[in-house]
Amino acid sequence: MSTGFFGAIDKIPFEGKDSTNPLAFRFYDPNEMVLGKRMEDHLRFAVCYWHSFVWPGGDPFGGQTFERPWFGDTMELARKKADVAFDMFEALGVPYFTFHDADVRPEADTFTESRDRLNAIADYFQEKMDASGIKLLWGTANLFSHRRYMAGAATNPDPDVFAYAAATVKSCMDVTQRLGGENYVLWGGREGYETLLNTDMGRELDQMGRFLSMVVDYKHRIGFKGTILIEPKPQEPTKHQYDYDVGTIYGFLKRYGLENEVKTNIEQGHAILAGHSFEHELSLAAALGIFGSIDMNRNDYQSGWDTDQFPNNVPEMALAYLEVLKAGGFTTGGTNFDAKLRRQSLDPEDLLIAHIGGMDCCARGLKAAARMIEDKALAGPLSERYAGWDKPQAKSMLDGSMTLESIEKRVIDEKIDPQPRSGRQEYLENLVNRYV
Amino acid sequence: MSTGFFGAIDKIPFEGKDSTNPLAFRFYDPNEMVLGKRMEDHLRFAVCYWHSFVWPGGDPFGGQTFERPWFGDTMELARKKADVAFDMFEALGVPYFTFHDADVRPEADTFTESRDRLNAIADYFQEKMDASGIKLLWGTANLFSHRRYMAGAATNPDPDVFAYAAATVKSCMDVTQRLGGENYVLWGGREGYETLLNTDMGRELDQMGRFLSMVVDYKHRIGFKGTILIEPKPQEPTKHQYDYDVGTIYGFLKRYGLENEVKTNIEQGHAILAGHSFEHELSLAAALGIFGSIDMNRNDYQSGWDTDQFPNNVPEMALAYLEVLKAGGFTTGGTNFDAKLRRQSLDPEDLLIAHIGGMDCCARGLKAAARMIEDKALAGPLSERYAGWDKPQAKSMLDGSMTLESIEKRVIDEKIDPQPRSGRQEYLENLVNRYV
Amino acid sequence: MSTGFFGAIDKIPFEGKDSTNPLAFRFYDPNEMVLGKRMEDHLRFAVCYWHSFVWPGGDPFGGQTFERPWFGDTMELARKKADVAFDMFEALGVPYFTFHDADVRPEADTFTESRDRLNAIADYFQEKMDASGIKLLWGTANLFSHRRYMAGAATNPDPDVFAYAAATVKSCMDVTQRLGGENYVLWGGREGYETLLNTDMGRELDQMGRFLSMVVDYKHRIGFKGTILIEPKPQEPTKHQYDYDVGTIYGFLKRYGLENEVKTNIEQGHAILAGHSFEHELSLAAALGIFGSIDMNRNDYQSGWDTDQFPNNVPEMALAYLEVLKAGGFTTGGTNFDAKLRRQSLDPEDLLIAHIGGMDCCARGLKAAARMIEDKALAGPLSERYAGWDKPQAKSMLDGSMTLESIEKRVIDEKIDPQPRSGRQEYLENLVNRYV
Amino acid sequence: MSTGFFGAIDKIPFEGKDSTNPLAFRFYDPNEMVLGKRMEDHLRFAVCYWHSFVWPGGDPFGGQTFERPWFGDTMELARKKADVAFDMFEALGVPYFTFHDADVRPEADTFTESRDRLNAIADYFQEKMDASGIKLLWGTANLFSHRRYMAGAATNPDPDVFAYAAATVKSCMDVTQRLGGENYVLWGGREGYETLLNTDMGRELDQMGRFLSMVVDYKHRIGFKGTILIEPKPQEPTKHQYDYDVGTIYGFLKRYGLENEVKTNIEQGHAILAGHSFEHELSLAAALGIFGSIDMNRNDYQSGWDTDQFPNNVPEMALAYLEVLKAGGFTTGGTNFDAKLRRQSLDPEDLLIAHIGGMDCCARGLKAAARMIEDKALAGPLSERYAGWDKPQAKSMLDGSMTLESIEKRVIDEKIDPQPRSGRQEYLENLVNRYV
Repeated sequence: MSTGFFGAIDKIPFEGKDSTNPLAFRFYDPNEMVLGKRMEDHLRFAVCYWHSFVWPGGDPFGGQTFERPWFGDTMELARKKADVAFDMFEALGVPYFTFHDADVRPEADTFTESRDRLNAIADYFQEKMDASGIKLLWGTANLFSHRRYMAGAATNPDPDVFAYAAATVKSCMDVTQRLGGENYVLWGGREGYETLLNTDMGRELDQMGRFLSMVVDYKHRIGFKGTILIEPKPQEPTKHQYDYDVGTIYGFLKRYGLENEVKTNIEQGHAILAGHSFEHELSLAAALGIFGSIDMNRNDYQSGWDTDQFPNNVPEMALAYLEVLKAGGFTTGGTNFDAKLRRQSLDPEDLLIAHIGGMDCCARGLKAAARMIEDKALAGPLSERYAGWDKPQAKSMLDGSMTLESIEKRVIDEKIDPQPRSGRQEYLENLVNRYV
Repeated sequence: MSTGFFGAIDKIPFEGKDSTNPLAFRFYDPNEMVLGKRMEDHLRFAVCYWHSFVWPGGDPFGGQTFERPWFGDTMELARKKADVAFDMFEALGVPYFTFHDADVRPEADTFTESRDRLNAIADYFQEKMDASGIKLLWGTANLFSHRRYMAGAATNPDPDVFAYAAATVKSCMDVTQRLGGENYVLWGGREGYETLLNTDMGRELDQMGRFLSMVVDYKHRIGFKGTILIEPKPQEPTKHQYDYDVGTIYGFLKRYGLENEVKTNIEQGHAILAGHSFEHELSLAAALGIFGSIDMNRNDYQSGWDTDQFPNNVPEMALAYLEVLKAGGFTTGGTNFDAKLRRQSLDPEDLLIAHIGGMDCCARGLKAAARMIEDKALAGPLSERYAGWDKPQAKSMLDGSMTLESIEKRVIDEKIDPQPRSGRQEYLENLVNRYV
Repeated sequence: MSTGFFGAIDKIPFEGKDSTNPLAFRFYDPNEMVLGKRMEDHLRFAVCYWHSFVWPGGDPFGGQTFERPWFGDTMELARKKADVAFDMFEALGVPYFTFHDADVRPEADTFTESRDRLNAIADYFQEKMDASGIKLLWGTANLFSHRRYMAGAATNPDPDVFAYAAATVKSCMDVTQRLGGENYVLWGGREGYETLLNTDMGRELDQMGRFLSMVVDYKHRIGFKGTILIEPKPQEPTKHQYDYDVGTIYGFLKRYGLENEVKTNIEQGHAILAGHSFEHELSLAAALGIFGSIDMNRNDYQSGWDTDQFPNNVPEMALAYLEVLKAGGFTTGGTNFDAKLRRQSLDPEDLLIAHIGGMDCCARGLKAAARMIEDKALAGPLSERYAGWDKPQAKSMLDGSMTLESIEKRVIDEKIDPQPRSGRQEYLENLVNRYV
Repeated sequence: MSTGFFGAIDKIPFEGKDSTNPLAFRFYDPNEMVLGKRMEDHLRFAVCYWHSFVWPGGDPFGGQTFERPWFGDTMELARKKADVAFDMFEALGVPYFTFHDADVRPEADTFTESRDRLNAIADYFQEKMDASGIKLLWGTANLFSHRRYMAGAATNPDPDVFAYAAATVKSCMDVTQRLGGENYVLWGGREGYETLLNTDMGRELDQMGRFLSMVVDYKHRIGFKGTILIEPKPQEPTKHQYDYDVGTIYGFLKRYGLENEVKTNIEQGHAILAGHSFEHELSLAAALGIFGSIDMNRNDYQSGWDTDQFPNNVPEMALAYLEVLKAGGFTTGGTNFDAKLRRQSLDPEDLLIAHIGGMDCCARGLKAAARMIEDKALAGPLSERYAGWDKPQAKSMLDGSMTLESIEKRVIDEKIDPQPRSGRQEYLENLVNRYV
């Protein structure tokens, strides 16, 4: 049944934290109960085709380093790729996978043929999903790699590209629904500009708003129950992308009346590029009601581009999962690995090891976060810090019953002279370090 | 009448571009007509007290370098500072000035006394404004320097600080209205956080929304005709500020229903810190309907903090003023110098020379931008680039009459296969270089 | 004996990792043996006066937040400051302290009086050192805060400033030697420029080279046995500092023939600002033979300036101590806390807690690094990776016995066609995660 | 003779600054005399094959956008590429071109065959060079694109890669000498690391030092009269590259005794990535005696990777050429365009227009710089600023005749109390603006 790509490896076991087996989990035990829920159901791991099975190992100064037996442009190779992919999904024991259309089928000469190929590979997926129990976290359309999209998809100056993109999204949504996908993702990697000199930003934002509205309309029309997700990224490939970060996307959704229809798929690397921490973006999305799912990776802090490395810093991941848990955990979303091997990691084993390490770090992070929640480690001091706002006079300033004038009167009458209190940052940082 | 601080200098003359007099304008001729309007009325220059008369020349590793005869904490020195400030405003011939409360009066022990001092200095200003014809572009409250604001003003965990800040804003709005100010500015330098560990972001955003709503209500109640402006900045002093950039502020305004009440005061240095070009922020604000005013300075591209230098790169400034002109020019807004001397520029003459250079660069930038507008240098190619969207079939995709299904049908039926066209970036860049 | 500033706290105990006492060590046990040496002797902790007792809590947009009973400009307050400082050194149990001249005595009107004050406070230190057994890791001169140094110390365009700085360094070296200091540090925070337009870089480098040569000469003349250390930092306060990073300093030392006389004091925050990881700078310094000592703190990765926070990320610290151990550990150097409280951390307790957390993180990092060394966790794979270079033919390419021609001949004759091997980055990252 | 790729365009004319012809020079007049030398002889323009004829328009998220008739892997296409390249060199009137081996010939299966192909294409070049008078500024070997180099060339853990790289450099040096190249360049795009975990930095630096020594030895042995140039770049493609910046390279050269043998080829984009301005790197290289040549492009200040755009900001370029002129101008070096079209600039005309714009900006920059030199615009104030150092007492501090002790004595005896003087930065910036 197995392709043999990973040798004799069939299933990665959980061996506990003292294991030195690089091909075993030390922390990820799907059935361990965390805050009353199985760890697997918390983390909802997915592996994305994109980086793990499609990326050839190139960078701006060098070409392909990986030599995969499924590289090539035929449907037969596409099926071979699927075979290996499902081998890995099963070996890792991830409950979900994710894909772009372009990841799973070769591009054809016409739209119709490309769509038919996607449908054919979806049939192939369905069999494998049935056999393995592996589910689809989300599908998406690659609207950025082909040269037709070089100046954007929805925001292209050429309406034919908009049309082509719209038709493509429809076919990907159809496949996503058919395969029981729990979300549909849009990443606008070319929705932006290279230079303002040739760009009408207002017009392009309107195009993008209309495009997304059509996606939402279509979702309802076909009865898709999943969540529509937008993935923020500030730049790269373009100089500026409209879905800059969570705050910008929120404004965009509000502008086009979509804030109750669309949520965000947040990636650590993209948060960093926008000048934020990962936990900031997660916390903000939760506060604005648009938290959906995460792409788990990490960026190199000393590099200025998206390095998409496998995550490995547990203290940082604990803070991220703390925000996920505070937001109520995932509903349709999950933890998707949109991380890529370093281009020197040539061996099949490297692919497994990278995912194992990432999953283990997530498990460690989740468990640390859960203990912080259980202990109210941070929630306690937080309540205390804002306790002043529980008093009626304080509340009245927020509920609309006071004005600048009445507040001023109180400041004068009561000779208010606020005295600062310690923010206790180091205390809280030490406290977090008890858990990680 | 003059304080003599600037020696014998009384009025900076316009001498034309061949002048080598460092104390003359080479490009800024207030009466020169540009696109049918006086240059002065386009640029609407203002000088801010803050950096020009208050900053002592310190940096994180060194103390005061400037020795100004008005430094100190008495009302007498505050009046002396005003005397020199108006000397400079008149010498430069700027039509406007701007200030924070803390710039113009010494802080007192009580709120009431601080407010009274502000009112007293406002009286002093009024006399000077009447005598000189110089007007107030905007006033603002410094809600970030005093230690009471160390954890925020509107977003403070202590409601007393919120109250103190609200009362302070009221007194500054009162003074601004009394002096005929054309705008009122809020810069939330402490509205943000140092660490998420002690921060409830959702709560703080709500506090900030309420605060701003009260400001808007008060504005209407007192009949203030000016514009309320928020100034975006992503960070510094805090790790993260809620008014991150124009896109974020737009979402914030929409969330609290204030998008028709509040506009933005955009600063080059803050744009840079947020990962944007200045022209990007201007263009986006115009597209979103929240463009108000600008703070003109520049940041060092190799430094990671707000360097607030006087502007000097004319090609960049031309692109900024192009966006201002495309947005219809300033209405209540203007070009405010929120730039500071380098701390080694000790001499009174340096203060004049810095402003002269900045104003001249603005004039050059404006004139270049105006010529581009007149020639439709960029507008022509832009129309051509998006011309496809003028066709009925294209329009129908944007006006709601088409769906993903009907678009897909057209893509299939018409075998749409869009071919990319050159974006002509280098051509447009060369073209801009004809004007700068 | 104690000042009572820290209340009843006398000595921070080691309570082990399960302790929840915020005023206890969980990992730092000075007497625990690590790789055959006491932990205290590995880490050689020092606390610096500078941030812990001198910094008032200001930032570029706000003034003092800390209210310390020793703030002020008298010698009596300087002694009070010393009393509290030694209280803290003893409470923490650090074996060393460090200081700038300006940290410990008020600046006087003349050089002579400033020097005499320094000598007086050194006498006071000597008594305390004798009583407590606390030693001096290094002394240094503050050649950057006073306005006389605004354009540099050794690199000033005014030779009188060079002279003043030279005399000042002499007096600080004298005091350092008298107090048994184990190193003398130079940080060139103003040795650089704000603008190239007014700077003669070649001349200034020569000035700096000469200055350092005089320091080295003086060291030998007075028989100072300690190490002269330069501290790299790329920028801030100035736009560009000549001691940019370890690589730049090495070139500088070679240029002036000082590479065997001077080593580096490396700080995490400065490494980050220069675009490097901390471990990179440590590793490079070791490779170049100029590793000396470390300043332990961390910078916020999302902020563009030196945030100097207390360290808290154990996995990162493990990699840093791994480099220290690989370099043979500290000789005269140590782990100096050049970290500052967040300005909202107002309470005396915050000062203790911050250091406790930092010391505990160092201890965890060191222990993890030591276990990696013991297990040859990384050394093993490393040897294997470069094993090809152990062969005679490979060695001959490095020892000078081969030329491009003879190598080409071999490539042709042997039809050399090298095949890449996996770099195993993810495997190694997972492996490190077993230890942290 | 012409390939017709550029249509009817034969030769780009100089039409003067009022021309609106996008296919004419407005400032670059090769024969205009500047500081007593022809403009062509100052600028010494070269066009590099690499970006202009080889790059397919891809980026990390998208594939080929350019469709060039010479793309492909045959020698016939390589000759066709050369035909078009020389068409463009002649049309632009550039006196030089530059290339990597991999730019000009398809990679073969063996070293020998690759070398033979290079030699064959060199023969083809020779004919074209003879016919056109176009010369070779430099040649270089691409030691970074092929997967064999994924872990470095000289610094590879596999000695066979070192050998292969050495043989390749030999063949490129041979061709460069045969074609009369005036320099030989080494860019170490893979000489660095992705992770310290698998890297022995000291060993790799030694490998690199040995490699460069062999290159220098070979140069002398074959009587190559050109200059060996290293091109600094801090990162990208790798996380860290050893040739980080000019300062680092200087240290490296000193370490291996090569500082009189090797100079630097400095690129604006690489300077920016290392946290420097272009003019900084130029000025430092001149001060250290290792200034050689420049790659002229620009990086986007808001993007964190090497954008390699055609230059367009004249004020910045004026400051760069000012440093070139201050360094005595180019000797064997020149102005090489290592800039690439934006990937949306599809048309042949775009390729011409981009170079025309770049060359015109260089000409404007050079002319502005020359006028500053003629007027001693900056040199005058600079001399004045350092004038204090001309005095005997000041000189004695630099010439070794004084010590810390004797200087201290003078400070005390003469009661030296240096008073800061204005650095006049804004004055100087305004002054520069008179010229640009």
